[in-house]
Amino acid sequence: MDPRIREHAEVVVDHSTDLSAGDDIVIDAHPVAEDLVVALHELAADRGANPLVVQERLGERYQRAFLRNRDDFETPAHLQALYEEMDAYIAVRGNANVTETSDVDPETNAAYQQAQQPLLNERLSKTWCLTQFPAAANAQLAGMSTEGYEDFVWDAVNKDWDAVRNHQAQMVEVLDPAEEVRIVSGDTTEVTMSVAGNPTLNDYGEKNLPGGEVFTAPVPDSVEGEVLFDKPLYHQGREVTDVFLRFEGGEVVDHSAGKNEAVLTQVLNTDSGAQRLGELGIGMNRDIDRFSYNMLFDEKMGDTVHMAVGRAYGGTVGEHNERNESAVHVDMIVDMSEDSVIEVDGEVVQRDGTFRFEDGFEE
Amino acid sequence: MDPRIREHAEVVVDHSTDLSAGDDIVIDAHPVAEDLVVALHELAADRGANPLVVQERLGERYQRAFLRNRDDFETPAHLQALYEEMDAYIAVRGNANVTETSDVDPETNAAYQQAQQPLLNERLSKTWCLTQFPAAANAQLAGMSTEGYEDFVWDAVNKDWDAVRNHQAQMVEVLDPAEEVRIVSGDTTEVTMSVAGNPTLNDYGEKNLPGGEVFTAPVPDSVEGEVLFDKPLYHQGREVTDVFLRFEGGEVVDHSAGKNEAVLTQVLNTDSGAQRLGELGIGMNRDIDRFSYNMLFDEKMGDTVHMAVGRAYGGTVGEHNERNESAVHVDMIVDMSEDSVIEVDGEVVQRDGTFRFEDGFEE
Repeated sequence: MDPRIREHAEVVVDHSTDLSAGDDIVIDAHPVAEDLVVALHELAADRGANPLVVQERLGERYQRAFLRNRDDFETPAHLQALYEEMDAYIAVRGNANVTETSDVDPETNAAYQQAQQPLLNERLSKTWCLTQFPAAANAQLAGMSTEGYEDFVWDAVNKDWDAVRNHQAQMVEVLDPAEEVRIVSGDTTEVTMSVAGNPTLNDYGEKNLPGGEVFTAPVPDSVEGEVLFDKPLYHQGREVTDVFLRFEGGEVVDHSAGKNEAVLTQVLNTDSGAQRLGELGIGMNRDIDRFSYNMLFDEKMGDTVHMAVGRAYGGTVGEHNERNESAVHVDMIVDMSEDSVIEVDGEVVQRDGTFRFEDGFEE
Repeated sequence: MDPRIREHAEVVVDHSTDLSAGDDIVIDAHPVAEDLVVALHELAADRGANPLVVQERLGERYQRAFLRNRDDFETPAHLQALYEEMDAYIAVRGNANVTETSDVDPETNAAYQQAQQPLLNERLSKTWCLTQFPAAANAQLAGMSTEGYEDFVWDAVNKDWDAVRNHQAQMVEVLDPAEEVRIVSGDTTEVTMSVAGNPTLNDYGEKNLPGGEVFTAPVPDSVEGEVLFDKPLYHQGREVTDVFLRFEGGEVVDHSAGKNEAVLTQVLNTDSGAQRLGELGIGMNRDIDRFSYNMLFDEKMGDTVHMAVGRAYGGTVGEHNERNESAVHVDMIVDMSEDSVIEVDGEVVQRDGTFRFEDGFEE
């Protein structure tokens, strides 16, 4: 076994989830990730934890077979009970074919996601970690060789997460007390939103592995303006390009996409929360130096910001603020490396991808 | 996909488990069985059931990694909750390597099995089905080509189970009201046991698929005599040959084996119930025409009987009789094709593999 797999497992078990004796854990993983799941079993056993492997969200052929043969969905009581009783949840992404569910009707998928929301809430209420195994199909999606992709993934995952936390803390200090954020990129994106009262979190490889962003929630009704997401969105096996959203009073009042606009439309129509933003994130991990069609990595890229329609994460909403609720949470990315600024309460914090605290540029 | 896979799934869903709308099911399967699990999802979805795939008992590398890194075991609460809430359980055997856990300490394995007993009891209290996918490693164990083994498995599984039920009912009629059974084979096996008050069940492909036996439980203290199990036992990745057991007052007072006797000793030492019989079964399925080192098939072979040390199945114990309890249930087989008789209450019911109701032989 590649020694980097056991290092990866150590980061998951000791840094991301901090397992201890008696913890009942669920690992959702496709068989292509078997080596990492084996390494997780070695360490979980050593720490006294009890792992159960499922293929719920990550059994791609099973999902396809199920979704193509059913159109009304319920929340299964046995899964609900499993998640209620577990202490920690580890999802290991890794596919045999990332387009396996591409011939599932998007409307069916949206109905399914909606019925699964209580399960999602349950998982998010526990210690959880989402990570990636460098499978061949994911390398292919990124346009990389499998070995090249292995280097990319393990360089991003097996690192000094304390150093990452310290670097990112500088941006948390700026954004956490802020009232208003304005983001401008070229002549296609100009958007303002309030983040007043909403905490900014520092993602250093706990819930997401790799980590590498700071993020908060916009106040749902405050978002105004237009955004062109220049990085493609890969959703449910389909690539959606040039997503354009126009916001008024927080709501998406106009949308379009270059390719697969129907997928975007379905996402927005899931429920009313899917038409509002649930997240603003600033990608700060410059070790993720290329786009790989994988949001877990892409949203952490340096010189990007991302916004998600749908559900806001609990910890990013102040106790007196409204939380955006939705069955979905779909991130989309804006390249900020050129002709771009992030302004916080009227002051430029980042220009063309460089932070003020990095070079103290003149405004 | 081989059309026999979808036929197999139909037998499981409509005959063995009879799934209906709203049923929450758990499918425990190794990824080598993926095609059958896909077909089960198609049909489960169509019937309105909710499947969850786990790799609990059947994730062989995960089990090995877990068991080699832990020596004290508990019953995980999340698994207990999952099984309590489910309506049906389907285990699909199929291995990548049947000897994957051969370097796990048998004592560790026994301790693990004991801690898992509440889970086993929970599963057995639900609708359940154990079946086999014809994976290459299982073909190899049987000494067969993969395609030859596919024919063997699907010929045994995809058949008219009503006809099987009717054929076997003739033996149920003999054994169900019986008091005493005596089994003699060559000069190595002569054993008597009471089955008084214990019902005889007809296995026609419900809990076991393939089915093909009738079985009951001996009264625990009644077993007297000696048995040489001439078919090898394959247990936890190890082959145990020529198992010999001597019973006094129902208890195993002497045991030996030709190869891997330590595995047998560990089984018997699991708990006190492991030293008594929990089952007597008569194999009646002549379509299973060869030994394949797989108890699910082997115990159903025509011209054999099998006895299991350990746990008795609930339905085979009369309400006023004692039920043998144990963390294990391990079947072993005696060839009855030559120089052998089964006597029930002093009358010969089978001689050299032929039943009285088949040819009405003179006693």
